[in-house]
Amino acid sequence: MIVTVTLNPALDLTYAVDALIPHGTHRVNAVTERPGGKGLNVAGVLHALGEPVLATGLLGGATGGRVAALLAADSVPAAFLPIAGETRRTVAVTDRADATGFWEPGPRITAGEWAAFLAHFRELLDAAEVVTLCGSLPPGAPIDGYAVLVRAAVERRVPTVLDTSGPALRYGLAAGPDLAKPNAAELSALLASPIADPDQPEVGNRAASRALTGGGRLERAEGGARAAAECRDLAGAARVRTCGARSVVVSRGPEGLLALTGEGAWRGVPSERLTGNPTGAGDACVAALSRGLRDRTPWPELVADAVALSAAAVAAPIAGAVDTDTYRRLLPAVHVSPA
Amino acid sequence: MIVTVTLNPALDLTYAVDALIPHGTHRVNAVTERPGGKGLNVAGVLHALGEPVLATGLLGGATGGRVAALLAADSVPAAFLPIAGETRRTVAVTDRADATGFWEPGPRITAGEWAAFLAHFRELLDAAEVVTLCGSLPPGAPIDGYAVLVRAAVERRVPTVLDTSGPALRYGLAAGPDLAKPNAAELSALLASPIADPDQPEVGNRAASRALTGGGRLERAEGGARAAAECRDLAGAARVRTCGARSVVVSRGPEGLLALTGEGAWRGVPSERLTGNPTGAGDACVAALSRGLRDRTPWPELVADAVALSAAAVAAPIAGAVDTDTYRRLLPAVHVSPA
Repeated sequence: MIVTVTLNPALDLTYAVDALIPHGTHRVNAVTERPGGKGLNVAGVLHALGEPVLATGLLGGATGGRVAALLAADSVPAAFLPIAGETRRTVAVTDRADATGFWEPGPRITAGEWAAFLAHFRELLDAAEVVTLCGSLPPGAPIDGYAVLVRAAVERRVPTVLDTSGPALRYGLAAGPDLAKPNAAELSALLASPIADPDQPEVGNRAASRALTGGGRLERAEGGARAAAECRDLAGAARVRTCGARSVVVSRGPEGLLALTGEGAWRGVPSERLTGNPTGAGDACVAALSRGLRDRTPWPELVADAVALSAAAVAAPIAGAVDTDTYRRLLPAVHVSPA
Repeated sequence: MIVTVTLNPALDLTYAVDALIPHGTHRVNAVTERPGGKGLNVAGVLHALGEPVLATGLLGGATGGRVAALLAADSVPAAFLPIAGETRRTVAVTDRADATGFWEPGPRITAGEWAAFLAHFRELLDAAEVVTLCGSLPPGAPIDGYAVLVRAAVERRVPTVLDTSGPALRYGLAAGPDLAKPNAAELSALLASPIADPDQPEVGNRAASRALTGGGRLERAEGGARAAAECRDLAGAARVRTCGARSVVVSRGPEGLLALTGEGAWRGVPSERLTGNPTGAGDACVAALSRGLRDRTPWPELVADAVALSAAAVAAPIAGAVDTDTYRRLLPAVHVSPA
């Protein structure tokens, strides 16, 4: 089975209002509650595809209980460690124009809770074929928390997928996950982070500098805004590989995916542009990649699958769900080519 | 003891953000959770004053569990009926300028749950010295729900205080509560409601029309904007009495209170204007009135107490709390005069 880890899950609330008026009072017309957090979305997509999955992480308090109840209502297998703090909420207020988001910071976890989770995670590794680590670290977790979990999985020869950003990504990469899945913005942020960070392994940064130089050459050769963007993303992916990830898949919104691996580089582009809800498309991508890593799917085929499943998430109205008709229709038509 | 009824309680969340940006995404800097709902605020104030109190009403789901846990943490005695639906939340987003509110509608209650609450309420009447009914009716409750509860209390000779608005107030008055406590805005809304409403008892409306005519005479005689407003509120209070309430106290913000009773009319004005959080001032007023009704406190003394306690709620930073120093300081200085 695939174990998805969500250390900072949420209860995602969506409030429909007529129009957001700053400093006004709004009667909410409709309330939607969903289990929130990237890893829970990944688990939801895998479960919807019929893949054996187990969602784990940290849940606490009444809000955590509600998340667990919603997962159970969706029949998503879960084994979360209870914590003392209250699981956070996110509130998205939608009006006719767009959504306004409010993100609670999440509970501070204790050193004891972190140690207990690590023990819990090691037990789950016995039955894990792939471990997928997603989203932000909660306050109180060690900044290299994902590196600790990746190392525990590597010791047990369980492949890992890491989908996070910022310092959690930077430190996590050092442990050598099999696959990292930043999006283009997360990649840019990583490239913009200081090279001379004393906490960052020296070798990774020197190699990253070389990768950036290589990226510069590619950029001059190809020309054009789209090609330049792809070039930047490939250079960034190269940096992520040199920082420790064996393979890197960059999700690029409607442009599709770029995969940079030990076996080569591929771009996957959907055959049509879908309109809908892009929230959760990256999580559907991670679901496809986790399944492909488990099945040792050849890269071109896996890139096509991840592109089609991402698009199928855009076509589904809620995050963590995929439109299976769209998935089946788009899969044969994804254009995969060497990058 | 005083039994406070909250049929549509809430978990009140306050989110502190730097600045509210419509259609932006906000990291919440701080989250505050409070048991919400007028009746719970009344219970909280009475408990803080050392008065025996019991909070009842309807609570459901994880959010209801959280409200119960917060009440228990504050040691407020409570006996809520569990319901299948999820108790609602309110979210107040505060930035440097002001607050922006989002109010969930609350769970729809079933006919069975309403019947079960009525039975539960009748049991609580055994030990009740006063029953205080506060706030909105939840979806699914009968529109004359407060009238049903007031009649049950009247049968057992338990005095009642009704603090609600709109149709819930209009229908509730018909059952003859001992005291109604509208604020000036709720009173205006009641006066603006159609006189020819076929669901409204005829006698109440005819009497109300007469009261309004009387109000018009008073207004011409006194003159001046403040006097005119007081005149309107007295006329409204007269309508509320003719609709069924034995006594009426109108809360008028910084202007204080107007009481219209079978023994006379009084105005109570605080000796100073307090700045602070006016949310919950009306609930502190109801707490004072409930205690005074229990103790048969003479009206002028009771009006002074209610004015001082309302002001003490403004001085406290959170709804449902009072600043006892402010209360003790202001009480002797409240100006009470015949209205």
